Amino acid sequence: MSTQFQGVIPPVITPRHADGSVDTDSLKNVTKHLIDGGVAGLFVLGSSGEVPYLTNAERELVVTTIAEANAGAVPLIVGANEQTTNRVIEEARKVVDLGADAIVVTSMYYAIGNVAETETHFRSIHAAIDKPIFAYDVPVRTHFKLPTDLLVRLGRDGVIAGVKDSSGDDVSFRQLLLQAKDIPNFDIFTGHEVVVDGALLGGAQGVVPGLGNVDPAGYRRLFDAAQAGDWALAAREQDRLADVFEIVYTPNGRVSGGAAGLGAFKTALQVMGIIESNTMSQPMLTLNDAETAAIRAILERNGLV
Amino acid sequence: MSTQFQGVIPPVITPRHADGSVDTDSLKNVTKHLIDGGVAGLFVLGSSGEVPYLTNAERELVVTTIAEANAGAVPLIVGANEQTTNRVIEEARKVVDLGADAIVVTSMYYAIGNVAETETHFRSIHAAIDKPIFAYDVPVRTHFKLPTDLLVRLGRDGVIAGVKDSSGDDVSFRQLLLQAKDIPNFDIFTGHEVVVDGALLGGAQGVVPGLGNVDPAGYRRLFDAAQAGDWALAAREQDRLADVFEIVYTPNGRVSGGAAGLGAFKTALQVMGIIESNTMSQPMLTLNDAETAAIRAILERNGLV
Amino acid sequence: MSTQFQGVIPPVITPRHADGSVDTDSLKNVTKHLIDGGVAGLFVLGSSGEVPYLTNAERELVVTTIAEANAGAVPLIVGANEQTTNRVIEEARKVVDLGADAIVVTSMYYAIGNVAETETHFRSIHAAIDKPIFAYDVPVRTHFKLPTDLLVRLGRDGVIAGVKDSSGDDVSFRQLLLQAKDIPNFDIFTGHEVVVDGALLGGAQGVVPGLGNVDPAGYRRLFDAAQAGDWALAAREQDRLADVFEIVYTPNGRVSGGAAGLGAFKTALQVMGIIESNTMSQPMLTLNDAETAAIRAILERNGLV
Amino acid sequence: MSTQFQGVIPPVITPRHADGSVDTDSLKNVTKHLIDGGVAGLFVLGSSGEVPYLTNAERELVVTTIAEANAGAVPLIVGANEQTTNRVIEEARKVVDLGADAIVVTSMYYAIGNVAETETHFRSIHAAIDKPIFAYDVPVRTHFKLPTDLLVRLGRDGVIAGVKDSSGDDVSFRQLLLQAKDIPNFDIFTGHEVVVDGALLGGAQGVVPGLGNVDPAGYRRLFDAAQAGDWALAAREQDRLADVFEIVYTPNGRVSGGAAGLGAFKTALQVMGIIESNTMSQPMLTLNDAETAAIRAILERNGLV
Repeated sequence: MSTQFQGVIPPVITPRHADGSVDTDSLKNVTKHLIDGGVAGLFVLGSSGEVPYLTNAERELVVTTIAEANAGAVPLIVGANEQTTNRVIEEARKVVDLGADAIVVTSMYYAIGNVAETETHFRSIHAAIDKPIFAYDVPVRTHFKLPTDLLVRLGRDGVIAGVKDSSGDDVSFRQLLLQAKDIPNFDIFTGHEVVVDGALLGGAQGVVPGLGNVDPAGYRRLFDAAQAGDWALAAREQDRLADVFEIVYTPNGRVSGGAAGLGAFKTALQVMGIIESNTMSQPMLTLNDAETAAIRAILERNGLV
Repeated sequence: MSTQFQGVIPPVITPRHADGSVDTDSLKNVTKHLIDGGVAGLFVLGSSGEVPYLTNAERELVVTTIAEANAGAVPLIVGANEQTTNRVIEEARKVVDLGADAIVVTSMYYAIGNVAETETHFRSIHAAIDKPIFAYDVPVRTHFKLPTDLLVRLGRDGVIAGVKDSSGDDVSFRQLLLQAKDIPNFDIFTGHEVVVDGALLGGAQGVVPGLGNVDPAGYRRLFDAAQAGDWALAAREQDRLADVFEIVYTPNGRVSGGAAGLGAFKTALQVMGIIESNTMSQPMLTLNDAETAAIRAILERNGLV
Repeated sequence: MSTQFQGVIPPVITPRHADGSVDTDSLKNVTKHLIDGGVAGLFVLGSSGEVPYLTNAERELVVTTIAEANAGAVPLIVGANEQTTNRVIEEARKVVDLGADAIVVTSMYYAIGNVAETETHFRSIHAAIDKPIFAYDVPVRTHFKLPTDLLVRLGRDGVIAGVKDSSGDDVSFRQLLLQAKDIPNFDIFTGHEVVVDGALLGGAQGVVPGLGNVDPAGYRRLFDAAQAGDWALAAREQDRLADVFEIVYTPNGRVSGGAAGLGAFKTALQVMGIIESNTMSQPMLTLNDAETAAIRAILERNGLV
Repeated sequence: MSTQFQGVIPPVITPRHADGSVDTDSLKNVTKHLIDGGVAGLFVLGSSGEVPYLTNAERELVVTTIAEANAGAVPLIVGANEQTTNRVIEEARKVVDLGADAIVVTSMYYAIGNVAETETHFRSIHAAIDKPIFAYDVPVRTHFKLPTDLLVRLGRDGVIAGVKDSSGDDVSFRQLLLQAKDIPNFDIFTGHEVVVDGALLGGAQGVVPGLGNVDPAGYRRLFDAAQAGDWALAAREQDRLADVFEIVYTPNGRVSGGAAGLGAFKTALQVMGIIESNTMSQPMLTLNDAETAAIRAILERNGLV
């Protein structure tokens, strides 16, 4: 049961000029590319937006730029990325002032918490912030898996408005879908690019794919096929997108895992002429010419250039 | 492309009398229950069969008993569960002599290997054993994830005939399905009970659900719906089975994770009158009366008793 | 070979009033207690100082307060706790302006890096900040172990002035001591309270024990015994301190691991009359009366109250 | 308080001929080399003995050969390496029949247990086997850390006679030493080659170093210095042995972690003329000529060839 947020909500990447500064023109182009592709919302300051690497001034610039380019077209769901409760609240206040329609919050990190502290964490943020909160379950970064029963409890109590799942745990994802089925206005998103058809078949309301920066229209077709109950078509579209996703493996260990995925998305957008440079945030390496050529080949065989 | 093994292939549980000895009469009943439920094969000496806990004599008794009860009705895929190459080969020879149609092999465990050693491991076993080999990817036990490209390479070279995936990594599972699509006679099974519809939508050939001991006919209906392209029906059947799967959470921390799942399957079969006792292998605790009552309630609301 | 920093350098705790605000009077008392105890420096804004939980304003207040109470008595080594390179640099500039004599930096966290990025990370910070940098190896928080050869290389190149080791890996700690032996002005500290005698026997220059807040004089005696070559005395003092360290186990699972240790140090200081309240940062639970009584008993049997 | 086992008790390596068969002549030479080096016991069928890779017939041959070469000179502590309780008991009976004076047992592996099951595991083995049992704490292989309070409880109840610690957790090791101090005939060994001086300073009774195969006399000198209270001499000897330990890093990623350490010990013994070949168990790679040359250089600079 969802009335608020559903559909394709990509985590917007953050383009940089070759000198490393944030490229606001390219960022506006990406925003337009996504809206033209039929997305239902924009996830701003997510991992794909390199939020961990942005300074506070850059974070503000990114939200402001996207908000201006979006001009109210779709809702903005903005990450309030900080390590503990009070720091998240301060960050959330900033992004709400800049135009966030909802915020995205992880469990604490670097700090070593437990389930009870995590519950207090979300409840305290909800008490302080007057916008819908999405819990972001990303244990590969936080090293803490949000328990299904905690998410359901927070959903029933109106503390969170939904979940963005990047846990890689499809079993608990399905159980969350089942147990949260009757919570009104509760939206569950998968963050995994290549299993969206299965997630939607299981009842997910939306998808937040980093690869959606590259092919938003493809994800929209996949979502529409699922909505129409044409699951064979949805699976075919998913298989095509899974092939596009092969771009993230082109660096093959030359760069860090973090830099490989985001770098591939940026490089693809550069090849497609949507952004100026594929420059990464420090200290991540930028993909090179050989990797760019390999990515171009994958885009070509999938009709994206 | 598969011609060999597909459909529902449950990992058969190992019933014990209250005194701890293997209960061969109950084991025959379970075998009959599964074949009557429409399974396409039996996975013998798997984790759900408590293979880590069985002595060598018990392993032999279990294979012999199931082979006798099966009487050639469906293929027997048998685990050769040992920690390193030469020990696996000795174990595999034993189970092949007892009637295995195919064997199931994990990467090494306790031993600390790497990808190259794992490739040698599978190639050496293939060279020694004249039966199809399924690679069993179960990092929660082996603490080693089988890389997708290794599995594809071993498949193309005819070293392995397929994969049983219990990795909990649905992203790499989908990529394996895509990359192995054109390998003839290569069968990929999911071991996860609650995401079978998505796995089949992505192209999996079969499913090896521990819960299939309890409700083989339900998994058969799910598989048939998927084969017929009726994905909405498949998802409904999956959601029902996910509710049945709630039996594994009834102990709620009183017993170990290993004992909870297997204990729930045994207890359900006892409640259903198919096995005599829900006694577990040493040193696992057996589920108690309160847990049995909770399991009975779940079975009742799903029409299984 | 060290001329810069050695001896006992405790990570100063951050006292709070019962209402949760930072208690600067108590913080000055703690600072005085430590200097009176014979410490060689103060580690400010460390994990024991609850730095992950402090807002930016609170971080500034803490550094300012300690700097004022210290009045140049001992060097201040201050944590620049942020998740990526540019954010660390901004944080480091702030604490240097507030009086830091050296800064402490971890590898990136939440961000997913690798060894090459980590090397760039430290080199970039060194290029931007004109103070000695200590690498803080704390994989339980960062989930990244700083490799020994990277630390040695950064030390030889003058990028880092030393290491604070909280890795829990005594094998690599010993190898670091050996390999860095001939680097001038390179100081290696252990952060583990109960193995200081062995660390000093292996050649460590200093110790940064959270428990040093409670018993700085005890750690000073241990350090002096080691300097004098009286290892039997050092081991006896260490065993006594290991018994005092039992205070951290009094909550026995009631609070998170993070809250247990820090809460025990605060509670001990409250029992000793040095700070007003044992209140913890949100969302951590504060130790209760039963735990306080248990801690008092441990302090009593060790002659600390 | 220990009267039973103390001193240097190396885990004996298993030499193989170039064709892969166990080389009993070389194994006898190693045994003699160790006894001549002044060891207090022999740990047979340990990880350094490649026990995970030995077939059952090879395990029997190894124990028999060492027992014969030892001829009662020192006690034999033998690993009963199996994955669950009843399988350990069967294995333990075999090695006791072959001459074990004590057995070494890990927690379960591959099986997924918990603390309560682990306690039952050790108690059941003790009830079945009439020899002292050493608990072997090796979470890098079992992925389960034996809790300190469990070890102390099992020690007080006479279930285990001691602990072989290869946990890499020096903090819990020190706490175990303190808490077990008053248990009669309870012996605690460290398995870490480069922190033996600190372990002995903290009160350990013995050491089980894989590197002890190469330089038993060095470890004996270290132990004797510690017994004599000459800790500066102990630390110097330890630093020298830590330099010898550098042999394990010569393969630098070419072989698996498991193969690097054991391969280096075997290669050193081959260079020293004590064993015929450095051949490893399948599927581990054997160290090559370049690595052998590097190992020879390390041995030479430490006076071992």
